[in-house]
Amino acid sequence: MKKYILKIDCEDEKGLIYRISDVVFKFNLNIEKNHEFVDHNVNKFFYRAEIIAQNEIDILAIYGSLNAMLGGKANIVLKEAKKKDIIIMATKETHCLGDLLIKHDSNELNANIIAVIANHNDLRNLVEKFNIEFICIKSDGLDRESHEKLILEKLFLYSFDYIILAKYMRILSSNFVSNFINKIINIHHSFLPAFIGANPYKQAFERGVKIIGATSHFVNDNLDEGPIITQDIVRVNHEMSWQEMRKAGRNIERNVLANALDLVFDDRVFVYDNKTVIF
Amino acid sequence: MKKYILKIDCEDEKGLIYRISDVVFKFNLNIEKNHEFVDHNVNKFFYRAEIIAQNEIDILAIYGSLNAMLGGKANIVLKEAKKKDIIIMATKETHCLGDLLIKHDSNELNANIIAVIANHNDLRNLVEKFNIEFICIKSDGLDRESHEKLILEKLFLYSFDYIILAKYMRILSSNFVSNFINKIINIHHSFLPAFIGANPYKQAFERGVKIIGATSHFVNDNLDEGPIITQDIVRVNHEMSWQEMRKAGRNIERNVLANALDLVFDDRVFVYDNKTVIF
Amino acid sequence: MKKYILKIDCEDEKGLIYRISDVVFKFNLNIEKNHEFVDHNVNKFFYRAEIIAQNEIDILAIYGSLNAMLGGKANIVLKEAKKKDIIIMATKETHCLGDLLIKHDSNELNANIIAVIANHNDLRNLVEKFNIEFICIKSDGLDRESHEKLILEKLFLYSFDYIILAKYMRILSSNFVSNFINKIINIHHSFLPAFIGANPYKQAFERGVKIIGATSHFVNDNLDEGPIITQDIVRVNHEMSWQEMRKAGRNIERNVLANALDLVFDDRVFVYDNKTVIF
Amino acid sequence: MKKYILKIDCEDEKGLIYRISDVVFKFNLNIEKNHEFVDHNVNKFFYRAEIIAQNEIDILAIYGSLNAMLGGKANIVLKEAKKKDIIIMATKETHCLGDLLIKHDSNELNANIIAVIANHNDLRNLVEKFNIEFICIKSDGLDRESHEKLILEKLFLYSFDYIILAKYMRILSSNFVSNFINKIINIHHSFLPAFIGANPYKQAFERGVKIIGATSHFVNDNLDEGPIITQDIVRVNHEMSWQEMRKAGRNIERNVLANALDLVFDDRVFVYDNKTVIF
Repeated sequence: MKKYILKIDCEDEKGLIYRISDVVFKFNLNIEKNHEFVDHNVNKFFYRAEIIAQNEIDILAIYGSLNAMLGGKANIVLKEAKKKDIIIMATKETHCLGDLLIKHDSNELNANIIAVIANHNDLRNLVEKFNIEFICIKSDGLDRESHEKLILEKLFLYSFDYIILAKYMRILSSNFVSNFINKIINIHHSFLPAFIGANPYKQAFERGVKIIGATSHFVNDNLDEGPIITQDIVRVNHEMSWQEMRKAGRNIERNVLANALDLVFDDRVFVYDNKTVIF
Repeated sequence: MKKYILKIDCEDEKGLIYRISDVVFKFNLNIEKNHEFVDHNVNKFFYRAEIIAQNEIDILAIYGSLNAMLGGKANIVLKEAKKKDIIIMATKETHCLGDLLIKHDSNELNANIIAVIANHNDLRNLVEKFNIEFICIKSDGLDRESHEKLILEKLFLYSFDYIILAKYMRILSSNFVSNFINKIINIHHSFLPAFIGANPYKQAFERGVKIIGATSHFVNDNLDEGPIITQDIVRVNHEMSWQEMRKAGRNIERNVLANALDLVFDDRVFVYDNKTVIF
Repeated sequence: MKKYILKIDCEDEKGLIYRISDVVFKFNLNIEKNHEFVDHNVNKFFYRAEIIAQNEIDILAIYGSLNAMLGGKANIVLKEAKKKDIIIMATKETHCLGDLLIKHDSNELNANIIAVIANHNDLRNLVEKFNIEFICIKSDGLDRESHEKLILEKLFLYSFDYIILAKYMRILSSNFVSNFINKIINIHHSFLPAFIGANPYKQAFERGVKIIGATSHFVNDNLDEGPIITQDIVRVNHEMSWQEMRKAGRNIERNVLANALDLVFDDRVFVYDNKTVIF
Repeated sequence: MKKYILKIDCEDEKGLIYRISDVVFKFNLNIEKNHEFVDHNVNKFFYRAEIIAQNEIDILAIYGSLNAMLGGKANIVLKEAKKKDIIIMATKETHCLGDLLIKHDSNELNANIIAVIANHNDLRNLVEKFNIEFICIKSDGLDRESHEKLILEKLFLYSFDYIILAKYMRILSSNFVSNFINKIINIHHSFLPAFIGANPYKQAFERGVKIIGATSHFVNDNLDEGPIITQDIVRVNHEMSWQEMRKAGRNIERNVLANALDLVFDDRVFVYDNKTVIF
């Protein structure tokens, strides 16, 4: 008995969910959960089901039937629920990376960490404690394009599902990002769309805000503008320096990234129109 | 074009959602939203759909087909989405009642307030400002049974969907409550199951908690033990007296009740096993 | 026995708090609470005390001594703690105004509502239920300057402490605002500094955010840029239209404004450098 | 230039803060921050200051003067602000322990981890990665008293400020605890005082709550009843099993413990009457 995840998204049309259900249910498998959503503004349909099946033949048959029915008009994903393979990119900070390493080590992360790529060597010691490959690709003396080319060469050696930017502090070019649409997940150290850009905690301090936040999102083009997965906030006050705000913010960053990854690794997230649907 | 709400709950069985969808979708109506959930622990199935239909005949036909198919084993509700009729019971406090009156007056409450019943006269002036009937039934010199009998006599004069206890400060007997299963909604001035009973703010103060909350729930038997609809919290600190905690708590009480009522009035809530499913 | 509030802010210097305490405490009055804060970045000192005194002579004496000592270099306010007088400005929405009216009517607002000024007549009926003067000053056919002139003429007829913009939907000119520095309090229907400007809920919807917020702040020049008093947030999801986000946002707006006003009306807020210190 | 922390708590009496300020300020040192609070219900006074001083002589002099003045009636602590020494006790779970190890390793914890004591061996590998002593004291075949005796023998070999129960899953006897009053900090896997005792997530699931929380508190006698330091919550819903609630709860447990430890390690917490004052 294995668990499979079926995800479908396509243009909405009348009776679609009935026709999909018709295919899914007539195989008489055990549907643990299913969710659907239609965005009537843009006429988009989203469907996700968790299916328990004993043999792969049923699954292949469902997939075949759905494909025959929806004829290339839909994105259909039907695959065994399993751990994702991820590459983590980082710079020097440990609060997000460390959380992922600990969870990975305790078998509480629904992902395998294939490698950590950093632009500094500071994190090598921590990463290697956990017997995970650490690759340092320094940017010293390199322009962005050359640096990214070195990273891409490494990345293309691996098979992976997602790149996690766990406080990777360099901006990725559109060119780089275009290789991994809906596959790069960032934790932004602020409550987007406020305080885009460098040192958001200092910006927040200077603006005198009473709440700071963090946002996890896909990076599809502009670093701070991709589809938002999840956000959270923490209260701050006049007694706090921007460094104290940053410290308070780190717990939130860590949590928001962790929550976003749980959702993504469980195949609960659809992306469309620079937004997400999350089941 | 009217909106209808279809709610079904019953024992789960394989293919149920397919068979229900089969009925619902073959009428070719516009399904705005639908949600389903199966609680595998207790083998319960829950389904809710918002259906847009032009004529009542289709709706009657769906209802008939579902009934024929599920043969008395399921609770099936299919009715036009419309404002609920409510009776509010209160005592002296205005923070929950006032919010409902304002929203009702501004046409922002998905309910008609039929009357306000109170055990004191303090709120008469406020309620009558809004041209809503105010009924005072004092308990002076009456035992609980006699007092509740007077209230019941009044209640039975009206047709209504829900009784809202907007800070009604007397305990209702099981006998009273048994007349209105899943129809009485209370706002409990604490974060259930903590601080059950009288003066929870004083209890919270004495316990030195750093967060206080409020809980809205159905009252089905024991006053503080019914199915929870929604909860929220607010932070408190050592500088606050219990009166200040109570003041902070009032905003939360008001909000939690408002949120719970929005869910109930939109027919988004199922009750089972002393719990709720909320779509 | 009356309660007095002492507030002092000035340039910080060594021993300042000792010297102030020296004055305050040698009169042997009952200090209920006192807070101080120094912003070392800008060398600013803030002090607030709640003093219980039997006769005004002591209070005058403290005030005199503090003035003598700090010699015009400090802002010193020492006055009886009492309800503030406020003018509310609004347009058509009732969620913030209604909350203030209910609290005022229940004696739970630490302020007297002197009048409500609106640019439409929609709210007249609600306001007059509570026997509060309602003044409609329409802007039809008037340029901003002429409209504001009419409002100013009315405002100057009254004595008041604060103007509360309870969803007043017109932008106030710098010229208008300059008459009431640190005296106009706005509720901004978004989590500043995000979504400045018109229809923030639509902006938030389009950006696909997972949290929306509200901000209460002083209006000192640019409408959306004044010192922030308090902020709060509520979670939203992909199922919500922008109208549903707006509905969710209204509870937050109402609460945030209520919290901000509690702080301001209790004289707990200092403003400096486009920020607030809140004790 | 070193930072010192002065903490005083005693019975309140008129002029106390003035007399203390008199001592503190006349030495003409740099007071970075100071807070005071009087609980008028129980007539208790609390004071905390951060003092920057160049030489220890001034500090000793202040301490001497305060002692002379308050004559044994007050608890006076005046010491250099420095990292606390801590012993962590744990069982098998890594979410709280791992967070402390990562922060410790990154120099972001205001404490030195002296050793980790566990009643199982599962965590050895993780702890030793970070070159921290791991001591396993199994309870197999031992009654509580004997097991605790073995732990106490180990503990008495070390000098430390606090014992952190980072998901130590055995109940400590009153006898054990009495050795370390206000020195043992626990993370309770629920929102106290709700769901005291075993498997709170299952209790929460069965009660159908919509929010779960975590509480960090001192353990002074009864395991779940000590002075609360901080609390936080996370929303849950009907789709979640109790195991999923537990997973959601773990992030909250980790955060709440981290926040509580930040406060304690910065000497911001006073304990009295089974409550805390937190500056």
